[in-house]
Amino acid sequence: MSAANPETTGMTDPTTFDASAYQATHFRWTVADRVGTVTLDRPARKNPLTFESYAELAQLFRRLPHARDVRAVVITGAGGNFSSGGDVHEIIGPLVALQEAGDAPGLLRFTRMTGELVKAMRACPQPIVAAIDGVCAGAGAIVAMASDLRVGTARSKVAFLFVRVGLSGADMGACALLPRIIGHGRASELLYTGRFLGGEEAERWGFHNRLVEPDALLAEATAMARELANGPTFAHAMTKAALHQEWSMGVDEAIEAEAQTQALCMQTRDFARAYRAFAARETPVFEGN
Amino acid sequence: MSAANPETTGMTDPTTFDASAYQATHFRWTVADRVGTVTLDRPARKNPLTFESYAELAQLFRRLPHARDVRAVVITGAGGNFSSGGDVHEIIGPLVALQEAGDAPGLLRFTRMTGELVKAMRACPQPIVAAIDGVCAGAGAIVAMASDLRVGTARSKVAFLFVRVGLSGADMGACALLPRIIGHGRASELLYTGRFLGGEEAERWGFHNRLVEPDALLAEATAMARELANGPTFAHAMTKAALHQEWSMGVDEAIEAEAQTQALCMQTRDFARAYRAFAARETPVFEGN
Amino acid sequence: MSAANPETTGMTDPTTFDASAYQATHFRWTVADRVGTVTLDRPARKNPLTFESYAELAQLFRRLPHARDVRAVVITGAGGNFSSGGDVHEIIGPLVALQEAGDAPGLLRFTRMTGELVKAMRACPQPIVAAIDGVCAGAGAIVAMASDLRVGTARSKVAFLFVRVGLSGADMGACALLPRIIGHGRASELLYTGRFLGGEEAERWGFHNRLVEPDALLAEATAMARELANGPTFAHAMTKAALHQEWSMGVDEAIEAEAQTQALCMQTRDFARAYRAFAARETPVFEGN
Repeated sequence: MSAANPETTGMTDPTTFDASAYQATHFRWTVADRVGTVTLDRPARKNPLTFESYAELAQLFRRLPHARDVRAVVITGAGGNFSSGGDVHEIIGPLVALQEAGDAPGLLRFTRMTGELVKAMRACPQPIVAAIDGVCAGAGAIVAMASDLRVGTARSKVAFLFVRVGLSGADMGACALLPRIIGHGRASELLYTGRFLGGEEAERWGFHNRLVEPDALLAEATAMARELANGPTFAHAMTKAALHQEWSMGVDEAIEAEAQTQALCMQTRDFARAYRAFAARETPVFEGN
Repeated sequence: MSAANPETTGMTDPTTFDASAYQATHFRWTVADRVGTVTLDRPARKNPLTFESYAELAQLFRRLPHARDVRAVVITGAGGNFSSGGDVHEIIGPLVALQEAGDAPGLLRFTRMTGELVKAMRACPQPIVAAIDGVCAGAGAIVAMASDLRVGTARSKVAFLFVRVGLSGADMGACALLPRIIGHGRASELLYTGRFLGGEEAERWGFHNRLVEPDALLAEATAMARELANGPTFAHAMTKAALHQEWSMGVDEAIEAEAQTQALCMQTRDFARAYRAFAARETPVFEGN
Repeated sequence: MSAANPETTGMTDPTTFDASAYQATHFRWTVADRVGTVTLDRPARKNPLTFESYAELAQLFRRLPHARDVRAVVITGAGGNFSSGGDVHEIIGPLVALQEAGDAPGLLRFTRMTGELVKAMRACPQPIVAAIDGVCAGAGAIVAMASDLRVGTARSKVAFLFVRVGLSGADMGACALLPRIIGHGRASELLYTGRFLGGEEAERWGFHNRLVEPDALLAEATAMARELANGPTFAHAMTKAALHQEWSMGVDEAIEAEAQTQALCMQTRDFARAYRAFAARETPVFEGN
C-alpha cells in the first residue's frame, strides 16, 4: 500500500510505480500535491472511451497500489463533458463485427476488459473523486459510479444508455453498483429506460455528493482530493476496502472484520500523530503510515 | 425466455404460453401491444387478495417466461385503489382457524404461497410496472414492491400493515426488499409502525419512480410498459435477472457475472439492429432476440 | 425472547433479567411503561463513551433478551447532546499507549469490545429508538446507527470523526451499516471526510426518521417506544431479526426465511387477539406472545 515505508522496514517494493513520471497515451495524466488527475481528453467527441483508453486506464489503476507519490485521484473530462462512454464507431462497430464472426470469446474478452477497469478502480487504495460536467453516459456513467465520490454540476446529465444499443444494464457491474448508491427502484428505472438524470436529481438521489458551478468543478474536486491526500491515507485505504467488500458480508461478520481493520489502523503512526497534535492543540500532519 | 425463436433454432418450447388467450378468474387480464395488464378487480372491497387470487397470480407469473406475446406487464387495481392486501375475512379468519387447529404446516403452506407470488414476479423475464393509486396496503404493498417500477399518485397510501394484525414485517420478503429500495432506517420505521406513506413522501424516498395525476395513471404506466415492450426485451430480461440476483454477490463477482451477461447480449440481433440503425440515422426496431 | 410465558409452558428462563431493578453505574437506566431508557450522562463532556460505559452498555443489551419487563428501548444523551463518542483522554490516550507498547492483541480487544456493543444492540429483541440532539459523533454516531429508529433535531450534528484521529471509517461496522441506511455514495463522503451532517440533511438522507423540536425530543422518542412496547412485541422481535439478517441473504432465500418467520408469528396469541378485536370493532390489546 502507499504506506509502505522502506526507511523503517528495510523492505522495498520491487513493483514501485513512479506515478509522477508516468506518461499517459490515451488520456491526460498529471500529478500535483500528491493528487493524480485523469482527464479524458477528446472533447470534440465528448471524451469517448476506446479499447485503448479502457486498457490503459485499467493498467494505470492496477499500478496505483504501488505508487507512493499519489494519495488521491481525480477523474474528469475535457471541454465541459465527462464522457460519452464507449464510442459507437470505435467500440460498438467492432463488437458487432465480432458477433458476425461468431466470436463469443472475443466478446467476453471485451466485457471482461471493461469490467477490469471497475475492479481496478475499486482495488486501488487511493480514493477517487469524479468531477462530472455535461454528458456522463454509458461506460462514462459507470466510471463515475466506480469512483468513491462524485462532484457534479446542475447541467450534468448521467445516463446508462446500454438499452439504447440493444444491450442490458448488466454492464461493468452497474446492476450491483447503482442500486447500492441510489436504491433499487431508482436504479431499475435508469437501467431499463436509459434516460438522462439531471444534476439536481442526481444530487437529490445521492448519486452526486454535491453540485458546484461548472467553472469551479475541477478546482472543487481537486481540493477535495487534496484534502484526502493530506489525511491519514493508510486509514483511507482501509475505509475504501471496507466499503467495497462489506456488501457481501453479514453485518456481524463486517463488525468483526472492522475490529481487525481498526486495530491495524491503531498501530499506525498517524494515529499517534493525531493524538499528540490534539494534546498540543495543533493540527495533525498525517503521513499515511 | 421470451427471445426463444423457433424459426431460427428449430427448437420449440413445449410449454409455450399463449398469454393473449389466457382467461383469468380472480382478476382481470388483458393483453394489448405486447403489454399484459393485471387488474385487481374487487373495487367495493379495495381489491383485496384472496387465497384464490394469490395462487392464480403466482401461476400466471410462473407461466410468463414461456409467453412470446407479452413483453412487459402492468399491475393495477380497479376503482381508485391498488389493493388492500390480504382480506381480513377471507384470509385472516381462516388463518386464525388454522392456528386454533394447531396446523403449523398449514400456516407455512400459506406463507410460502404468498412468498411464491413474489418469487414468480421476480423470476419472470418481463419488467413489471405497478400503477398505484389510493390504498396499497399489506400484501398489496408487497406486490407493488415486487414490481420493477412503480408509478404512483399523490393521494396513494402505502402501508405495511402486518403489525396491526399482530404479525411481523417479515412477510413475503418485505424485510429484504424494502430496505434495498428506500434504505434500512426508513424501511424499519414503516415495518415496525405500519404507518401509511403518502405519495409525495414515497416519491421522495424512491419508492415511487414518479407521481402522475390519478386520471393519467393507467395510461402513463401502460405507456412506460409499452416502451419497455418495444425495447430489446432479451436485454431487459437480463437486466432484471442481474438486478435481482446481485444483492447477494460481492461486487467483483457481480462484475464478472455481468461480463458474461453482456457478452451474451452482444450476440443478439437486437444489438446488431441498434448499430445498423445508428449508422443509418434511423430509430432501431427491436425484436427481443 | 420476551414472549416466553412460564404460565403456559411451565418452562422458566433461568437467566431471566429483572431490567426494572437494574442499577446502572456508567449511565442512567430507567424503566417505565415497559420502556427502558439509557441516558448517557456526562453532559459537561457531551456524554463521551468510556471503556466502562462501552462494556456496561454491551452487557445490558446482552441481558435484554432475557427481560420480560422491557419491550422497547430509548437511548439518549443528557444536556442537549447525544454523545461525543470515545473520549480522547480516557480512550484515545490509553490506545496510543497500547500502540507504543506494541500490544496488538490489546488493541483488538478494544475494537472487538466496541463492536460487541453494536452486535448486542442488534441482537436484543427490543426495538431501540435513538433520541438525537446536539453532537452525535464517532462511536456516538455508531450507537445511533445501531439503533432501529432515530428521532433527531434540526440542530443535531452527526459525524463519523474517525478520520480526524488518523483512523479508518471501518469502526464498529460503520462501513456496513451506513451505506445500507443512506446509500453508498453519501456514506463514502461522511466516512472519508468526517464532516458533520446537519439535522435537515440527515432527515433528507433517511438517517433520521423524523425531526422534532429539542424540547419535545425525549417525549416523542419515548412515545414512539411506548407504542412499540404496546404492540405485538414477539412480532417486532422477528421483524428486527429479519431486517438485520437478510442483508447477507439472496432475496429468494429471504422470502423462504420470512415464510417460516411469519408462519411462526401466525401461531402467536397476538395474531388471534388482533383478529378478534377487528371482528368486534375494538382496538387489540397485544401481550407479546
